[in-house]
Amino acid sequence: MSARPGRERPPSLPPGLVHLVESVSPPDARARADVETRIDRLTKPRGSLGRLERLAARLAVVRGDPPPAFAHPTVYVLAADHGVGARGVSAYPREVTARMCRNFARGGAAINALSSSVGCRLVAADFGVDADLDGPDGILDRKVGSGTADLTAGPAMTEEKAVQGIRRGAALLDETLPAPDVVALGEMGIGNSTAAAAITAALTGRPAEEVVGPGTGVDGEGLQRKREAVRTGVTRVGSEGAADPFRVLQEVGGFEIAGLVGVVLAGARAGVPIVSDGFIATAAAALAVRMAPASRDYLFAGHLSPEPGHRVLLEDLGLEPILDLELRLGEGTGAVLALPILDAAGAILREMATFEEAGIARSDDDPDREET
Amino acid sequence: MSARPGRERPPSLPPGLVHLVESVSPPDARARADVETRIDRLTKPRGSLGRLERLAARLAVVRGDPPPAFAHPTVYVLAADHGVGARGVSAYPREVTARMCRNFARGGAAINALSSSVGCRLVAADFGVDADLDGPDGILDRKVGSGTADLTAGPAMTEEKAVQGIRRGAALLDETLPAPDVVALGEMGIGNSTAAAAITAALTGRPAEEVVGPGTGVDGEGLQRKREAVRTGVTRVGSEGAADPFRVLQEVGGFEIAGLVGVVLAGARAGVPIVSDGFIATAAAALAVRMAPASRDYLFAGHLSPEPGHRVLLEDLGLEPILDLELRLGEGTGAVLALPILDAAGAILREMATFEEAGIARSDDDPDREET
Repeated sequence: MSARPGRERPPSLPPGLVHLVESVSPPDARARADVETRIDRLTKPRGSLGRLERLAARLAVVRGDPPPAFAHPTVYVLAADHGVGARGVSAYPREVTARMCRNFARGGAAINALSSSVGCRLVAADFGVDADLDGPDGILDRKVGSGTADLTAGPAMTEEKAVQGIRRGAALLDETLPAPDVVALGEMGIGNSTAAAAITAALTGRPAEEVVGPGTGVDGEGLQRKREAVRTGVTRVGSEGAADPFRVLQEVGGFEIAGLVGVVLAGARAGVPIVSDGFIATAAAALAVRMAPASRDYLFAGHLSPEPGHRVLLEDLGLEPILDLELRLGEGTGAVLALPILDAAGAILREMATFEEAGIARSDDDPDREET
Repeated sequence: MSARPGRERPPSLPPGLVHLVESVSPPDARARADVETRIDRLTKPRGSLGRLERLAARLAVVRGDPPPAFAHPTVYVLAADHGVGARGVSAYPREVTARMCRNFARGGAAINALSSSVGCRLVAADFGVDADLDGPDGILDRKVGSGTADLTAGPAMTEEKAVQGIRRGAALLDETLPAPDVVALGEMGIGNSTAAAAITAALTGRPAEEVVGPGTGVDGEGLQRKREAVRTGVTRVGSEGAADPFRVLQEVGGFEIAGLVGVVLAGARAGVPIVSDGFIATAAAALAVRMAPASRDYLFAGHLSPEPGHRVLLEDLGLEPILDLELRLGEGTGAVLALPILDAAGAILREMATFEEAGIARSDDDPDREET
């Protein structure tokens, strides 16, 4: 590979991240036209598999044509607490983060049920839960701190912690054996939809009203407090935030979000598809793409959340969601549900015959078409 | 079971179908409230799994709570030719039906790739293809005729053939071993989106313009001819067609559509979930529901097709589609892609812990909520 063009790395990236960010290379763009031509020769009317064809083409660019079936799909569910949670921005108290981590460890959460149903390995890790999760009920300990600071009062984390979170996320992917060949993003953290909304507003310049939603169920005065918290955080970041994703993470992000940025960067570096989940996971993916734009080519949007900021992020990233099931839980639930669809998209390139092989004239060759 | 109320059987049903239609019983409606209560006790904010929760509830009503994981999912792909195909209503010539059947038999079609990817058994059967499909390239021979008559000139099939098609479809399901525990509907037949549009217009009273679309790719003058063919067929059926689904099938249907009506009725009789595909399969499902209204409780909509009549049918049936991937191929492609999602919906009832089990206070009990 030649050196990456300068525009692909934000100017203020800390030295500890430069190597990781520069290791992300775009897939071979020449493959795209070839696979699109091949999809049009398969035994189906042109375009009749709709979004599945576009998924197949993108998958083949990342994994080769035909893309192999997923053998080691893995969802990373990273958890952390948020200082802003004390501001009454969530329908649930802070302790729920730790209790849900124990629920992950015991196999009782939605992500356990869904990932087991679709045959996806689950890696759950504590990136900053304000509780001791060691012992038999523990999950992987990658704790960066005991929850972030309150983003309405100052930066959510120091530069050092933000770097550490990203690097631990990347290392987590690198340590998973056998190596994942598709990665799903998941998270848990009371208060983290406030952080995601602040990240979205800071990166896209959209006002708080357009990116703040009920999360997992806050309403009325809680929703007002949430909007106010986002406004305060975003005002501190200032309008130059859009060009400085690392600073956005540090000011208004979370430890699990930092970890997911690392998972995305390491997944892109490894050349595997990365399936984002809802609002919080996609906010992390958007930060990773601002740091290393080539990582966008490896990203797939698992689903569309009803959370208003999620649509803003997907439009910003130019990604079409695979599912739209009104999921608003997080944990990676929408990402893992999309895995069988993405894998099936690859199957059309592995298994379908061409018109020539099946001895069928293409519609384009049909004289009846020439009348119209 | 007590005798079925008279309103549940259309008055003109031929004697050869009465037993099959009357054998369809509704699932136990009392189960519904119990499962909804149980879903609300699982460790997730209430309603946060969106449509997946509604799928889980419906699945549990059909299969019990918790519903077992699918062990023998089966897609039935029924094929037939259509006399109306000679009217220039399709982008493809009639011979393509037989060639695609051979493609199914050799494993080269989209439905082969997708059903193998999601682990679904495929049963392909000839219900009326105008070609000899016997021999090594053959598919199951359930031929009712060599294509229907032209629906613009008179009834597409005799009463006898319509009864035969439905009964052979039902028998096909009963003969499949091990017995399917979830059924997906698929079809192939050049010209059959014209038949489906005529069925839709006749059952719902909507005008041809609202239910005719490009199918697998006809446009311009072909689309005009298609609308005209639908108008002609529907005019012959007359406005009383809505109350007489069997006559609608006989006048404007197809042999593969008759077969799918039988698959739906036999699936409902067996008490298994039935996942419809796009416009044509859903037209067959709508006919089955008009014949035996209780079969609606077993029906799930695999996806939403861009074909305008499909949305009309789903609204008529009161079904929410699981996927919306702009698929317009048929063959059962949208139905089999929805199977992993439906199975995962059942998994939340099998595997998730309750709030009590996980030691988490519900949001409803949180004093913070009382402020709002």
